[in-house]
Amino acid sequence: MKIAILGIDGYIGYSLANHLMKRGHSVYGLDSGIRRARVEEIGGDSLTPLPSIYKRGEYLYNTYGDRYLGISYRNIVNCDYNININPDTIVHLAEQPSAPYSMKDSYHAVRSQGDNVLGTLNLLWKMREKFPKAHLVKLGTMGEYGTPNCDIPEGRIPAQCLGNSGAYQCLCSMSGLLFPRTAGSFYHLSKVHDSLNIEFACRNWGLCSTDIMQGVVFGLEGENEQELTRFDYDEYFGTVINRFCVQAIAGIPLTVYGAGGQTRGYLPLKDSLHCLTIAIENPPKEGEYRTFNQFENIYTLNSLADTVVRGAKSLGIDASIEHIENPRNEEEHHYYNPDHQKLFDLGYVPTTDIQGEVTTLISKLLPYKDRIRKAVIYPKTKWR
Amino acid sequence: MKIAILGIDGYIGYSLANHLMKRGHSVYGLDSGIRRARVEEIGGDSLTPLPSIYKRGEYLYNTYGDRYLGISYRNIVNCDYNININPDTIVHLAEQPSAPYSMKDSYHAVRSQGDNVLGTLNLLWKMREKFPKAHLVKLGTMGEYGTPNCDIPEGRIPAQCLGNSGAYQCLCSMSGLLFPRTAGSFYHLSKVHDSLNIEFACRNWGLCSTDIMQGVVFGLEGENEQELTRFDYDEYFGTVINRFCVQAIAGIPLTVYGAGGQTRGYLPLKDSLHCLTIAIENPPKEGEYRTFNQFENIYTLNSLADTVVRGAKSLGIDASIEHIENPRNEEEHHYYNPDHQKLFDLGYVPTTDIQGEVTTLISKLLPYKDRIRKAVIYPKTKWR
Repeated sequence: MKIAILGIDGYIGYSLANHLMKRGHSVYGLDSGIRRARVEEIGGDSLTPLPSIYKRGEYLYNTYGDRYLGISYRNIVNCDYNININPDTIVHLAEQPSAPYSMKDSYHAVRSQGDNVLGTLNLLWKMREKFPKAHLVKLGTMGEYGTPNCDIPEGRIPAQCLGNSGAYQCLCSMSGLLFPRTAGSFYHLSKVHDSLNIEFACRNWGLCSTDIMQGVVFGLEGENEQELTRFDYDEYFGTVINRFCVQAIAGIPLTVYGAGGQTRGYLPLKDSLHCLTIAIENPPKEGEYRTFNQFENIYTLNSLADTVVRGAKSLGIDASIEHIENPRNEEEHHYYNPDHQKLFDLGYVPTTDIQGEVTTLISKLLPYKDRIRKAVIYPKTKWR
Repeated sequence: MKIAILGIDGYIGYSLANHLMKRGHSVYGLDSGIRRARVEEIGGDSLTPLPSIYKRGEYLYNTYGDRYLGISYRNIVNCDYNININPDTIVHLAEQPSAPYSMKDSYHAVRSQGDNVLGTLNLLWKMREKFPKAHLVKLGTMGEYGTPNCDIPEGRIPAQCLGNSGAYQCLCSMSGLLFPRTAGSFYHLSKVHDSLNIEFACRNWGLCSTDIMQGVVFGLEGENEQELTRFDYDEYFGTVINRFCVQAIAGIPLTVYGAGGQTRGYLPLKDSLHCLTIAIENPPKEGEYRTFNQFENIYTLNSLADTVVRGAKSLGIDASIEHIENPRNEEEHHYYNPDHQKLFDLGYVPTTDIQGEVTTLISKLLPYKDRIRKAVIYPKTKWR
């Protein structure tokens, strides 16, 4: 298939490009370089050394030949780009991905929602005009749902969940509506706004899309130095398991926010690539808007911290855990039972050995120990 | 009370300012003049002659003295303004209000969502910093809900509507979550995005807000020429009853979009002022986010067209009705049963004589017959 990846220079984008070309697909990429700029803005840096976008393009060209269709360095928000191929699939990963970044102040909140929501809205209009048959694979987040005190279906309210009682008898027909979102940051809300805009574009124009409610990704991929993903561990762009691993290596206590009972879906980066590939290779019908809840399993913060400590110990590193005041506003003990059946039905075989994954990750990161910037890890942005 | 009105120069804003000062409240206004610019952009003009914003300010100053706290001519989207009072209430009416305008092309869609969503987001941050105790009265729309095949509650899913059955047993706890929105244009979606952002700001920061899901407003208010509201009748900014009345006066057939079974909530402008005043004078608790469904009653397009024809006939005008291809993408026969009890509980006495209202409106508009621009009424923007 011919696939355009928006955000090809990012954490998932570059690994996905390599993964898809290894499978024989053709890939065209777009990126504005803004992820690098944002990490630099907050004082961070990828733990893995990062070749320039052009060097990455050179590697892809030398490695995959004709399958590599080029990278265009363009502003994605304002739709200041052409997609110079007729793609079967457009994978949209080009968004500001950090919740705390969106909660810093009004400027960062407005940039997060402006860039994400308007960038996707522009893309939808471009698809309507030029690629109405292409499949939009859009990266959302499990965080769109928040942590309601009920089961979470995949996208829409299922028929079997509703009874038929009382004054609102007709509400039994609420099935099929989008399951209500209760997001916990302006970043997460930007993904909710995206979901609603995309659903409307499918309903109104007949576009088709897979909206991925992804859990928290961790890990490092790449068969050689030139294929390595970027790896962030700062308070803004470092996801929690990645951050814990770096703290263990740096000899800093793992900082668990609050009580640590917060439960979320998680998946290794390689599972994310596997799942995205399944979505790409199994497109929805014309006009269909579908939601995948994409994660391997759910874990509490406390259990993840323990997993990282055990992994470190097996490598001879003595790591400790510190509970700190929670900078976020979130439930620290709560019900959490999200459905995630659709990807399994399409062949997703999850990596279930999370302990093994984490231990491997720590060992892969060890060579970069000297590059760790300790000052950027501890959280400074507070929700309230 | 001290009240700041954002969008004081608009259709509702200017009437509301007069109404509130007549009741003894103090009013400070902000406006960027963008509504005038947008109507000019699409070739329209208010049917009623419009004094400049400064003339309006002069009138308010001369009429209400100390209760008039000034008007500031400022960009509202970028939050390029100070609110030079310590308001008890901030009424936010400063948004792009037209669905077809948002569906013209990508530029207008992005402007609509950018201006509305980011303007409100900026306001929320400003309130957090400067006016955390003020009550935000925000104008949303009944169109946020769309036309689901079930009853529509006021904002959240009520407890009594959910049974307890089947695999998703826990979904009986879905009560309290926001009722899912299924909006029908990028404009309507901008209001949904606003609602979600505001709900989060209340939940996270303890702001309080009344989010008004308003029906379609019609009518003309003002006790003299200087108090008169603007009155739009073009395809973009003219709401349907107002447009029908102008078509009747102009001797053009009333253009019903499609079959005409489309059902929505409607209310006269004076009822809107009445309801907004109730919301202002009965603020929610600190940290509370509440939703009012604000309309007098529900009507089909066909019944409204008949009402206008009857009203015109009683004034000696022979009006006709034409069904034209629906430029929008909407159900033309559908279930519609939205709740709207909260405002009644707080004392809203609705104007139930819609025929009388419409007939009076036509007679008030007759003196402006020569100002009608016939070319701007027929719909040119299509949803698909």
